[in-house]
Amino acid sequence: MPRRPHAVFALAPWARDGAFPPDVLDRLCRLVDIDPALTVTSFGDPAAVAALGRAEILISGWGCPHIDAAVLDLAPRLRACVHAAGTIKKLLDPVVFSRGLTVSTAAAANAVPVAEYTVAMLVLGSKQAFTRGRRYAAEQRGDGSTATGLLGCTVGIIGASRIGRLVLERLATYDVRPLLYDPHITAAEAARLGAELVDLDTLCRRSDLLSIHAPSLPETRHLIDARRLALLRDGAVLVNTARGALVDTEALTRQCATGRISAILDVTEPEPLPAGHPLLRLDNVFVTPHIAGAQGRELRRLGEFATAEIDRLLRGEPLHGAVSEAQLTLIA
Amino acid sequence: MPRRPHAVFALAPWARDGAFPPDVLDRLCRLVDIDPALTVTSFGDPAAVAALGRAEILISGWGCPHIDAAVLDLAPRLRACVHAAGTIKKLLDPVVFSRGLTVSTAAAANAVPVAEYTVAMLVLGSKQAFTRGRRYAAEQRGDGSTATGLLGCTVGIIGASRIGRLVLERLATYDVRPLLYDPHITAAEAARLGAELVDLDTLCRRSDLLSIHAPSLPETRHLIDARRLALLRDGAVLVNTARGALVDTEALTRQCATGRISAILDVTEPEPLPAGHPLLRLDNVFVTPHIAGAQGRELRRLGEFATAEIDRLLRGEPLHGAVSEAQLTLIA
Repeated sequence: MPRRPHAVFALAPWARDGAFPPDVLDRLCRLVDIDPALTVTSFGDPAAVAALGRAEILISGWGCPHIDAAVLDLAPRLRACVHAAGTIKKLLDPVVFSRGLTVSTAAAANAVPVAEYTVAMLVLGSKQAFTRGRRYAAEQRGDGSTATGLLGCTVGIIGASRIGRLVLERLATYDVRPLLYDPHITAAEAARLGAELVDLDTLCRRSDLLSIHAPSLPETRHLIDARRLALLRDGAVLVNTARGALVDTEALTRQCATGRISAILDVTEPEPLPAGHPLLRLDNVFVTPHIAGAQGRELRRLGEFATAEIDRLLRGEPLHGAVSEAQLTLIA
Repeated sequence: MPRRPHAVFALAPWARDGAFPPDVLDRLCRLVDIDPALTVTSFGDPAAVAALGRAEILISGWGCPHIDAAVLDLAPRLRACVHAAGTIKKLLDPVVFSRGLTVSTAAAANAVPVAEYTVAMLVLGSKQAFTRGRRYAAEQRGDGSTATGLLGCTVGIIGASRIGRLVLERLATYDVRPLLYDPHITAAEAARLGAELVDLDTLCRRSDLLSIHAPSLPETRHLIDARRLALLRDGAVLVNTARGALVDTEALTRQCATGRISAILDVTEPEPLPAGHPLLRLDNVFVTPHIAGAQGRELRRLGEFATAEIDRLLRGEPLHGAVSEAQLTLIA
């Protein structure tokens, strides 16, 4: 049996426990030499410094402190950072790449529950289920005349990201017409994803349901602004499970307050919304506290992905979640 | 071209317009001789009596009056009742069978949106999305420690009905463990549906999520009673898109009021719930006003089904929604 490389956990205890339940931890411990009781949440403490000095693989996750040149100086043997969570952009200083580190993210595993949540919200959004649940008494009309329902809906997907693609894949089992906006893909690629590629304004004009899956970047801030919100059809439903900054919150609030459109938001700007914010009080807006991604028992999918990734790393196989320096600035 | 048989609509105008939009009506009118402007909602009025006297096919739906021997006496040429909606049980007196009528229901078409709605609710129920949306401020913990999420959930399906089977089919694309209770099927049939067949008490004990798809019959009234609700695991979520009478509302209210379990209800007993009913006020209960089935733009699926069914009838092909006298008492 080859020598198992030293590894160290650097994530909040709850995230480690969720991602690495006993059976996943067992698998991990067969691959690497790791102290399962230690997880580094500050690179200042002596146990962390000692562990970093030995570590060849850093297993990060929610609660991992920022990794910059100073941290890397403490970890001369480090060759890989395997992230058992989604977003890695804010975690890593680009210096990790100049030091030759291999970087992997479990974003693909975290994308699964986000896509599931999104599709569920599109189904329920098409039925105005939240609005009608809240207006329960008034909605007992029994005439079914409301122009709701998923059948034949035009669903606009903003961003052919990992999550956007998973959503499109799942939508293929529903009777809907997907549109896709993404500045980085071709019409042929969109068609392979089952969608018609359109520009963003066209998507806003034509969609009954819109779902945002674009990265939050300086140039995508308020991608859905007052002008584009005004393009939406009467009765349109906007779903945001990506990042709050992609939508102009004030403009969205104004449009929803008129009752013309509805929104289902798992992310907001600011996040959380202050108590009493109009978006929390409107019947036609449903806000959840950033729960679309891996939660509770879903965390194990992240640990399983990270463990499989370490297995591939040690076997010299291509990683499934490899992140390049160029990608670091593009991802969500 | 063969003579087109006379047909008559007998359903509420909104249901006719929804199920038979212009393109579907065009297809229908190529098959039968029908006055698209007339829809019978009372068998007492003279136009109805005249139309019934000629009608060979009755196209029923929501808002169709009860069809009994007296109605059939007005319709001596009638040979088929094609129902462009789901439930047909209360519509037809069993006498229709002794008169040799062919009966068909679009329940299979109505099952699609119900199954879609149910799966969406199971996904969101697993995340306690409704409870957490309502407790938005308190839920901003960011520690992800709540034991929620779909991955690995045990999902108990009560009833291998048309809808129950569609739900199981869709659940096959999720990482869950389906259980099935149905007194009329074998373990091998359940396994083919991707589920483990168990008795109902076992299903209640083991399921994280439960979804009811059984018919409402005298013997299934309060199938989920106080005793079975007490068997549910802490944190379990009950979804009911079938019929309110299947659940003991008072017992459910008591269990949900403790916070031990949650419920997502599209149907209730009584329906609607009176204003201010505790189920409408609890954070962990989400009630919608019976909207899971075909709504708005989804109604066309019913008309498409009924039209295809009439096409099959006229060609002498087997019907896809044929209802026998024996089935009439068993269906929802």
